[in-house]
Amino acid sequence: MRIALLGGTGDIGEGLALRWAFHTDHDVVIGSRDPDKARAKAEEYETELASRGVDRKITGFENAMAADRARVVVLAVPAYHVSDTVDAIADSLDDETVLVTPATGMQRDDDGFHYNRPGAGSVTELVAGAAPDDVSVVGAFHNLAAGRLADLDADLGIDTLLVADDPDAKDLVRLLAEGIEGLRPLDAGGLANAPEIEALTPLLINVAMNNDGLHDLGVRFD
Amino acid sequence: MRIALLGGTGDIGEGLALRWAFHTDHDVVIGSRDPDKARAKAEEYETELASRGVDRKITGFENAMAADRARVVVLAVPAYHVSDTVDAIADSLDDETVLVTPATGMQRDDDGFHYNRPGAGSVTELVAGAAPDDVSVVGAFHNLAAGRLADLDADLGIDTLLVADDPDAKDLVRLLAEGIEGLRPLDAGGLANAPEIEALTPLLINVAMNNDGLHDLGVRFD
Repeated sequence: MRIALLGGTGDIGEGLALRWAFHTDHDVVIGSRDPDKARAKAEEYETELASRGVDRKITGFENAMAADRARVVVLAVPAYHVSDTVDAIADSLDDETVLVTPATGMQRDDDGFHYNRPGAGSVTELVAGAAPDDVSVVGAFHNLAAGRLADLDADLGIDTLLVADDPDAKDLVRLLAEGIEGLRPLDAGGLANAPEIEALTPLLINVAMNNDGLHDLGVRFD
Repeated sequence: MRIALLGGTGDIGEGLALRWAFHTDHDVVIGSRDPDKARAKAEEYETELASRGVDRKITGFENAMAADRARVVVLAVPAYHVSDTVDAIADSLDDETVLVTPATGMQRDDDGFHYNRPGAGSVTELVAGAAPDDVSVVGAFHNLAAGRLADLDADLGIDTLLVADDPDAKDLVRLLAEGIEGLRPLDAGGLANAPEIEALTPLLINVAMNNDGLHDLGVRFD
């Protein structure tokens, strides 16, 4: 299956690209507003995988081109860019596309990080509102530490929470998540349940900041 | 140390009472608005402990009486009762008392449970605002499943998050939490970081509702 990682040049996009290319046979495509940057990163990921004996072709394109013909499009961009990015790729999406959103809104003050909840209810619901009506939206991969995800030597052993109103789209993303070794997808219900998932990300950062020896934290429900 | 569990007749209060009485030597006092109910529950807990070979005296009183001379007072009451309860016990608190709040605000709709954030920022901050100025407030034990906590046969193996602006009060509650086998206290910073902790409780319920085989969930940061 073709997966396009928009914003696949940094942060959580890098980790998802490397993990899917390393653990699965999915066709991984990197998207960026700057196609040269997308291509350079794609080559960098190929080199990283080759150093581990995995020969994979990863391509890089401008976002709309990357999204074109992808079955799954992951919006691995900051929360304040999700609406613009969805608008820019709208013509590349159709009723077969599943749009996945891992972004959360945060702000920082002297105490730590806080969830900055958008008027739409959550960043996930903001994406659902911006997406064409026939495109299914799934919230997933919100609470993964980027550095740990991108380090293929790091064991995960953590959970990721899925929200969607379309059960078929949710099932598809669950399969994608299960493809990543050590990542357990859990169903958290409909899109309306996204705020509490997004709020978990600043909490993970606050816990890492306040406890020696804990960093790049994930969460396990048990 | 004397610990008063206000609202210790139900929900999370029962579990904390049983665990502290079972695992530690702290003097556990049950508080309720109804002193007869407090005494009846205290006897019930004594019977439960005796059935496990633990001979402990647990007393029950009306809330203000229970809080009197307690070093730590746990407000194990629903969020909509915390202000009234603090007002009712204010004369029993002094600058030596640490007030612990585990309550969170939730509402339910067709999708599941949602964090109902109070105007004060969080229920924890609501308690801090209602408490006399010289009383230190610690947010803790927000995300524990009541049934699992009260079942002394159940292994915990989960974390609880602490927030406080007074580091000494936070340290005291950390020691209390460490006294419960299988419960790991983690520092989540100041009181202003409470909303994201309180929002985790409805998320735990949503995850339990949507995944077969998962119930009475706790969380582990890893």
